[in-house]
Amino acid sequence: MTTDHRLYSARYFLTPGECNAQQLMPLPLLVERIIEIATLHADSLDIGYPTISREGNTWVLSRLAIEMKRWPRVDEYYELTTWVENFGRFWSDRNLAIADADGNTIGYARTVWVIMNMETRRPADLTIYPQIEGICNPEAECPIDRPAKLAKVESDDTVGYTFQYSDIDFNRHVNSCRYIELLLNCWPMDWHDEHPIARVDINYLKEAHYGEQVSIMAEPQGQTAHAEIVSADGTSISRAAFRFAP
Amino acid sequence: MTTDHRLYSARYFLTPGECNAQQLMPLPLLVERIIEIATLHADSLDIGYPTISREGNTWVLSRLAIEMKRWPRVDEYYELTTWVENFGRFWSDRNLAIADADGNTIGYARTVWVIMNMETRRPADLTIYPQIEGICNPEAECPIDRPAKLAKVESDDTVGYTFQYSDIDFNRHVNSCRYIELLLNCWPMDWHDEHPIARVDINYLKEAHYGEQVSIMAEPQGQTAHAEIVSADGTSISRAAFRFAP
Repeated sequence: MTTDHRLYSARYFLTPGECNAQQLMPLPLLVERIIEIATLHADSLDIGYPTISREGNTWVLSRLAIEMKRWPRVDEYYELTTWVENFGRFWSDRNLAIADADGNTIGYARTVWVIMNMETRRPADLTIYPQIEGICNPEAECPIDRPAKLAKVESDDTVGYTFQYSDIDFNRHVNSCRYIELLLNCWPMDWHDEHPIARVDINYLKEAHYGEQVSIMAEPQGQTAHAEIVSADGTSISRAAFRFAP
Repeated sequence: MTTDHRLYSARYFLTPGECNAQQLMPLPLLVERIIEIATLHADSLDIGYPTISREGNTWVLSRLAIEMKRWPRVDEYYELTTWVENFGRFWSDRNLAIADADGNTIGYARTVWVIMNMETRRPADLTIYPQIEGICNPEAECPIDRPAKLAKVESDDTVGYTFQYSDIDFNRHVNSCRYIELLLNCWPMDWHDEHPIARVDINYLKEAHYGEQVSIMAEPQGQTAHAEIVSADGTSISRAAFRFAP
């Protein structure tokens, strides 16, 4: 933790049991940690779930971009640092830096959050919380592009999936990390063995729920590949663009 | 952390993003934490993965029992404490207590671990590591029954599943927590809404791998229900018995 309340850091240790088949930090775990540290920072600023839930509101991740020079390895310590870059009435831009045990930055992330009313399932007004004033840290650097707005994926090669009990989170919709697992599963193990992720952009477009049947599809375009989860009525639930390292 | 090296404790905070649909700690997350703290304690005793991997060995969870009086709630701190009760040539009994923020014990767990040679995929001899002597803490109390040896589940009502990239862990077999998710998914959301888990026994019987097709089935027997994952050749991969609270 730093003394500047506009910055929040946490140190983690990557255990063997947390690693992916490549013995590195899995992307869904990094997203879980990003959500965790965003939660802890928001709580420390009195703008977290315990506060906003009094008005029936909850934080929801809307867009995400991550760029990694390299991924944390097994038995390695790593540190996440986060800050709010900016906010508007209906969104908040939160950035992150990922450092290794020696303090070298190994990656950056940009996230866009909204608050949603749990009853209406509609975006709620962030500016009713006066404590959000003064928390921005626009001078902290995050030298990666903002999360891209991704186009619809066109593919006839789809896989079906029905969301199960274990896929559902606290907000009674599908867990943000679970979508990413399903999107990563569009590529076989031997592809992942050879191609670590250099950058990913994710758009969360629509809530999916327990028992919902979806189609999952991917559209490879050279080194960057697009994937999407589509609901039975054809509307998009989430989209991702992966840039794999050569 | 305590000053007795035979005990190891860690404190955690349950964020909203980690909760299940019942806004409680999910069983797979508790198992993840149990594996994590076991790893950290073993590392601190110089019997962890960094040490035993020199001989090509890795720790594998073989059996597990958990009993919870209640589950940690959203935004609650909880603490895990672990110790080794006993060990033999090919197994190690590790127990855990789960406490709430006020220090009240809310659950216990018993785990059985083996070390496996990563090349031969066979159990390896634990007693070649002299540092395992003197680490046992048999006087610490764990007042729950040992993990049961579970019988085969008989059911014609099976669901098929093929293991995907995201299901595979560091040891190139299916993640221990992922089996539990698939076993929990045998029951619908409204059952889980009404019936928190009071006790679970899990037997890990055989490694499952990437691309493997399995059948998942459940056999309800009143308040205790059995579930199993079976490979295509009929051999059992893992079994669970859930005792649901009324």
